Amino acid sequence: MPYFDAASAAPLHPVAREALLASLDEGWADPARLYREGRRARLLLNAAREAAAEAVGCRPDEVVFTPSGTQAVHSGVSGALAARRRAGRRLLHSAVEHSAVLHAAEVHTAAGGSRTELAVDRTGRVAARDVAAALSPDTALVCLQSANHEVGTEQPVEEVAALCQEAGVPLLVDAAQSLPWGPVPGGWSLLAASAHKWGGPPGVGLLAVRKGTRFAPQGPRDEREAGRSPGFENIPAIVAAAASLRALRAGQETATEAARLRQLVDRIRTRVPELVPDVEVVGHPVHRLPHLVTFSCLYVDGEALLHELDRAGFSVSSGSSCTSSTLTPSHVLRAMGVLSEGNVRVSLPYGTDEAEVERFLEVLPTVVRSVRERLGVPAAGRKTAAERETATATAVGGTEAAPAAAAEEPGEPVTSAEPAGLVVDSLGKRCPLPVIELAKAILEVPVGGTVTVLADDEAARLDIPAWCAMREQEYVGERAAERGAAYLVRRRA
Amino acid sequence: MPYFDAASAAPLHPVAREALLASLDEGWADPARLYREGRRARLLLNAAREAAAEAVGCRPDEVVFTPSGTQAVHSGVSGALAARRRAGRRLLHSAVEHSAVLHAAEVHTAAGGSRTELAVDRTGRVAARDVAAALSPDTALVCLQSANHEVGTEQPVEEVAALCQEAGVPLLVDAAQSLPWGPVPGGWSLLAASAHKWGGPPGVGLLAVRKGTRFAPQGPRDEREAGRSPGFENIPAIVAAAASLRALRAGQETATEAARLRQLVDRIRTRVPELVPDVEVVGHPVHRLPHLVTFSCLYVDGEALLHELDRAGFSVSSGSSCTSSTLTPSHVLRAMGVLSEGNVRVSLPYGTDEAEVERFLEVLPTVVRSVRERLGVPAAGRKTAAERETATATAVGGTEAAPAAAAEEPGEPVTSAEPAGLVVDSLGKRCPLPVIELAKAILEVPVGGTVTVLADDEAARLDIPAWCAMREQEYVGERAAERGAAYLVRRRA
Repeated sequence: MPYFDAASAAPLHPVAREALLASLDEGWADPARLYREGRRARLLLNAAREAAAEAVGCRPDEVVFTPSGTQAVHSGVSGALAARRRAGRRLLHSAVEHSAVLHAAEVHTAAGGSRTELAVDRTGRVAARDVAAALSPDTALVCLQSANHEVGTEQPVEEVAALCQEAGVPLLVDAAQSLPWGPVPGGWSLLAASAHKWGGPPGVGLLAVRKGTRFAPQGPRDEREAGRSPGFENIPAIVAAAASLRALRAGQETATEAARLRQLVDRIRTRVPELVPDVEVVGHPVHRLPHLVTFSCLYVDGEALLHELDRAGFSVSSGSSCTSSTLTPSHVLRAMGVLSEGNVRVSLPYGTDEAEVERFLEVLPTVVRSVRERLGVPAAGRKTAAERETATATAVGGTEAAPAAAAEEPGEPVTSAEPAGLVVDSLGKRCPLPVIELAKAILEVPVGGTVTVLADDEAARLDIPAWCAMREQEYVGERAAERGAAYLVRRRA
Repeated sequence: MPYFDAASAAPLHPVAREALLASLDEGWADPARLYREGRRARLLLNAAREAAAEAVGCRPDEVVFTPSGTQAVHSGVSGALAARRRAGRRLLHSAVEHSAVLHAAEVHTAAGGSRTELAVDRTGRVAARDVAAALSPDTALVCLQSANHEVGTEQPVEEVAALCQEAGVPLLVDAAQSLPWGPVPGGWSLLAASAHKWGGPPGVGLLAVRKGTRFAPQGPRDEREAGRSPGFENIPAIVAAAASLRALRAGQETATEAARLRQLVDRIRTRVPELVPDVEVVGHPVHRLPHLVTFSCLYVDGEALLHELDRAGFSVSSGSSCTSSTLTPSHVLRAMGVLSEGNVRVSLPYGTDEAEVERFLEVLPTVVRSVRERLGVPAAGRKTAAERETATATAVGGTEAAPAAAAEEPGEPVTSAEPAGLVVDSLGKRCPLPVIELAKAILEVPVGGTVTVLADDEAARLDIPAWCAMREQEYVGERAAERGAAYLVRRRA
């Protein structure tokens, strides 16, 4: 049964399992105690710290273990900000950071600090020049992930680290997704990671704070882990986590596996748009994690898609609004400005069988088709990538006015009065229904005519412009409505 | 090799080990996901929550799992205080709470809250009437442990819970030490515990918040565990923790084992003062944990004692200042006003062999004697309990003036000028040296004469009065000195 959600949690590495079992017998005692069981526990903890530090690329006394990657991020952000309070209270972070960073940032602003979010391009990448421009004398900390957890895009961490060093501002790198594949290069100051992403057991996070980085742990004090992570150390799990990370680093295994998975992911990136009409593959095609790919399918309900894939034996995750408890699309997809409906993230664990990927590519088109059919999607609306490219060529070649009509920025509020066209009332309807209704309505107006979609589903704000971009229609803009918002689209072809 | 430090960490219960292994394969995935691995993990988590709730005596939706008992206490205290902010900002807690409570209380006062510490008697017990007197309209929360981690004394939790309910103030019970032996009775509002104290694996704490108790989680928000404990759930460890707690509750096993260990502890309580001269057994003789006993040995260096016991094969812990990283005696012994030097805590794990306890009683006198000899303790200074009782009877019967002389409260500052007697300079000397030097000097002054000990070791403040009480000498009081303090003692016999 293929499990394609390594980015959520990787299955336990055999080395981790073995180390966990061994240290259940040797590492259960309190490492702060003077007696033999305590000494044995302490030796195991120290050895694990050394192994982890080597894999991270820092000194053992710079590493502490936390109960989770989330807590590593929370402690790292709050400790670094508190220590830099005199320098300033501004936190800089990318718009696509993990929620652990965003929630730590919320605490900071609730306490009177300020934050600046760094925008990303459509591939999810921050521009180093934007970081340089945003670094100000009152910047206390910069947070930048090494690679994104939803779309796999790698950030220019090394370049940003150099800029931060120059400005004398610490950089915290959330390396949760990339650490399994290799150390984070460059002069970062703090680094957070999570063992269950690299095949270690749950219950272990890692926080590295480089010497010379000011750090003031927040919350109730505790003597364990250099005062940076309270509570009794989970030594068996820590030992298992360190052992599996060391195993990944030994020899060429990881590099070979990364290259192999990269090819499998490339195959998915190429084949899915060929096999399934109206699909957008998102994330950077080159600067990306080896094992992760995300795509979104127009006119598809993400939850239904996940269920169907699960029934077909595939475990994947999704950033669609209907699959989130808050019913809002993933903030990552939103920041990138890409389609969020029918979103699928595939992240291949170590050792994924090529045949399983092939079977996924076989199953996916049928699954998407059946979900679309159930939703009553107009068949004419569906195009594969190849068909779309032809269509674009024709449109651009044949209609002089088209590029000019697209000059208005998508997402901009509409200020001028628009001629009344067709109005589609999608109020109370959830993603992907507003987009499906738009796709039907657009065929009912003449070229140059408009469709206004009234919608109160959060996903519409992202998906209607994304649909326009994919279907070469003109997204005119959004205006406030009595309920939800009104999205204006002009038919171009 | 007898391990007698179950109160620090109990060895893993076989049921926990088995459950952990089974759930490593079934429970590693993200329980928030919709696919089969996520559903399996969620089922395991829910089942563990139900089992834990039953053992605690509350509803499953009142229980969340945290990464440690320490974090359960930290989150419980901060969440309850924040939710009660309108009612008031005063925190009431006993003077003998675990450091996790005290450190959470420090954060509270640093943020502008107030706290009142409830004194304990010489057995370490809080008086319910003191709680009643201290409860005020601005009391936000009361923290009371069910039983003390260092001396085993049980607190009147049920009675205090009733007082709190009457006053409409929530009560948080730190049940870390007692939960292995049974549920905490009474109407508590919040309860914290730690799995590695009951034979579960490290990495699991438990926080129960009863319905109707206001609670506002602090720190960065996170959707996991009802928003009360951030970070990816450690499901294999949680399952193991719940399984071992359920195993302890099944049948009569725990009750039988508690009765057996209680007898072994009674034997230690009786025999140690018979076998070793100048020993004080501390903690309540009846209202106590079944498996735990603490005693202190005059003229003994706690660290040396622990090392010798370790060499003899016994793993115990100590609240002596020399065994703490801060070089201060345990705050518990200090609050009780009992001797802290040469302190030994014996906490017997489930299934402790009676023969091991017998061997401990055989080894202890020799070990204590050798430590004392190395420190050059005057042999005449040593008395067993029986000898001391005879001596007390003589003193009380023979000297009319003696009880009156003791009227001055020990520890009170000396205001009147005392006649200059012998002065012992113990500055820069660590426990137990100041007390040893006092024991030697007292023999050099006539009855009625005084010895002033100059000492800057924190333990002297506790141990000099305790020595006076044990040796029927009069502790006159303490006054500030240029360095450290001057402790005045008058020879009574």
